[in-house]
Amino acid sequence: MTTQKLIEQIHKKKSFLCIGLDVDLDKIPKHLLKEKDPIFAFNKAIVDATHHLCVAYKPNIAFYEAYGLKGWKALERTINYLNDKYPEIFTIADAKRGDIGNTSSRYAKAFFEDLAFDSLTVAPYMGKDSVEPFLAFKNKHTILLTLTSNEGSSDFQTQKVNEKELYKYVIETSKTWKNSENLMYVVGATKAEYLAEIRQIIPDSFLLVPGVGAQGGDLQEVCKYGINDNVGLLINSSRGIIYASQDENFAQIAAKKASELQQQMAELIN
Amino acid sequence: MTTQKLIEQIHKKKSFLCIGLDVDLDKIPKHLLKEKDPIFAFNKAIVDATHHLCVAYKPNIAFYEAYGLKGWKALERTINYLNDKYPEIFTIADAKRGDIGNTSSRYAKAFFEDLAFDSLTVAPYMGKDSVEPFLAFKNKHTILLTLTSNEGSSDFQTQKVNEKELYKYVIETSKTWKNSENLMYVVGATKAEYLAEIRQIIPDSFLLVPGVGAQGGDLQEVCKYGINDNVGLLINSSRGIIYASQDENFAQIAAKKASELQQQMAELIN
Repeated sequence: MTTQKLIEQIHKKKSFLCIGLDVDLDKIPKHLLKEKDPIFAFNKAIVDATHHLCVAYKPNIAFYEAYGLKGWKALERTINYLNDKYPEIFTIADAKRGDIGNTSSRYAKAFFEDLAFDSLTVAPYMGKDSVEPFLAFKNKHTILLTLTSNEGSSDFQTQKVNEKELYKYVIETSKTWKNSENLMYVVGATKAEYLAEIRQIIPDSFLLVPGVGAQGGDLQEVCKYGINDNVGLLINSSRGIIYASQDENFAQIAAKKASELQQQMAELIN
Repeated sequence: MTTQKLIEQIHKKKSFLCIGLDVDLDKIPKHLLKEKDPIFAFNKAIVDATHHLCVAYKPNIAFYEAYGLKGWKALERTINYLNDKYPEIFTIADAKRGDIGNTSSRYAKAFFEDLAFDSLTVAPYMGKDSVEPFLAFKNKHTILLTLTSNEGSSDFQTQKVNEKELYKYVIETSKTWKNSENLMYVVGATKAEYLAEIRQIIPDSFLLVPGVGAQGGDLQEVCKYGINDNVGLLINSSRGIIYASQDENFAQIAAKKASELQQQMAELIN
């Protein structure tokens, strides 16, 4: 998907919500466990109930890998369902991959070609030649980890490198890489006050912002510092939406939670 | 596997060789493509021919993910075969994972429990709470990326943080984490001269050293600076061994290449 198409969808739906599909069989409604593929059944119900309220879905790949073959099959079915039925949706494989070039190319093929995700999260630690194989794919987006929402982000990301914080140094360096126009960036919602400085370095880039909801990030604060002329934000919520209810009507409750966020977003866009 | 058992195997086999099982269907012998599961057939042949010459195998997970369900199935068969037939072998899932705590726990379960690997490579960028969920597993080993073998390692890893290189800062910080005795470290063979300084920080830890062979690292140099009283090294070679021949007798040729390295290692241990 082109960035332009994503921006059009944001304005059309008055939403920049991304819903995290982090499926945990211990947390989904019990009645779904009777299904042949409970993971996909859960995702399908959530997607069918919420697709008009969000612009993106983000399966975190760890949750699928944890179920082995069964999980991988459910992931394939989920992305195929999204691509077939809702092609206007921007899809994010939250995989945080990154390896030597030879190997990163394999991950790029797996997520961009075979599974046909629009984007993939990538870790920066191994530098340029570990990221550029992802950037080489046209109309695919590489979402680089920069400042994450967890406590451990202060261990390295906010340490000073050459007199600036590592996460800023990562962002600045990444701008020099080939096809860097295909980069987006992960910035945790729990770090809203950092967004103003990040916007000075990358005023136009899209930011994927996890951490609203269960992790305590604040939507108003994120927008205050992070929104740009194209909105430029994808705000992710996972547990706060998909596990809002474990009853038979869980998908409707999830849609209600998503709708509350979407309505706040509609006001923030105006 | 305990570290003690790994050390015993190294002395018994006079080898600290790790063979990388990075299976690419474009590179394996053509006659194997007729098999029902060519990836597993290739791995089985390599393992049966080389298991007495090495102490560890390291499938890079990207190569399996690139083949989707078929790849995941071949990975499961490979690790099950290793665990059943060669339980004395140390197994490494080269996955370079790392995420927020909640999610890292899922990856840990997938690789340590379901697939039953002895160890997993993990990226440090997200800090303490992204790594500790892996460290919580007893007799499982978390192999932290520190100084990698690729060119891009100079982008961030060798930049100065608080007056020392980031990779050293990562190693020192990791020593303060809970269950840090379960840590090993990735140090690229192409950076042999750095090993002396790394040994000052972690004299006793095991180092996984990729980059000997196709990437140009030198075994003698690595040992000169990196070996300790327990050897403390696992030297990985992938392409240089497994793709040494594409003929019918590829496994024998792979064993010959492995044997050359093992013989050099036997001398270095003495």
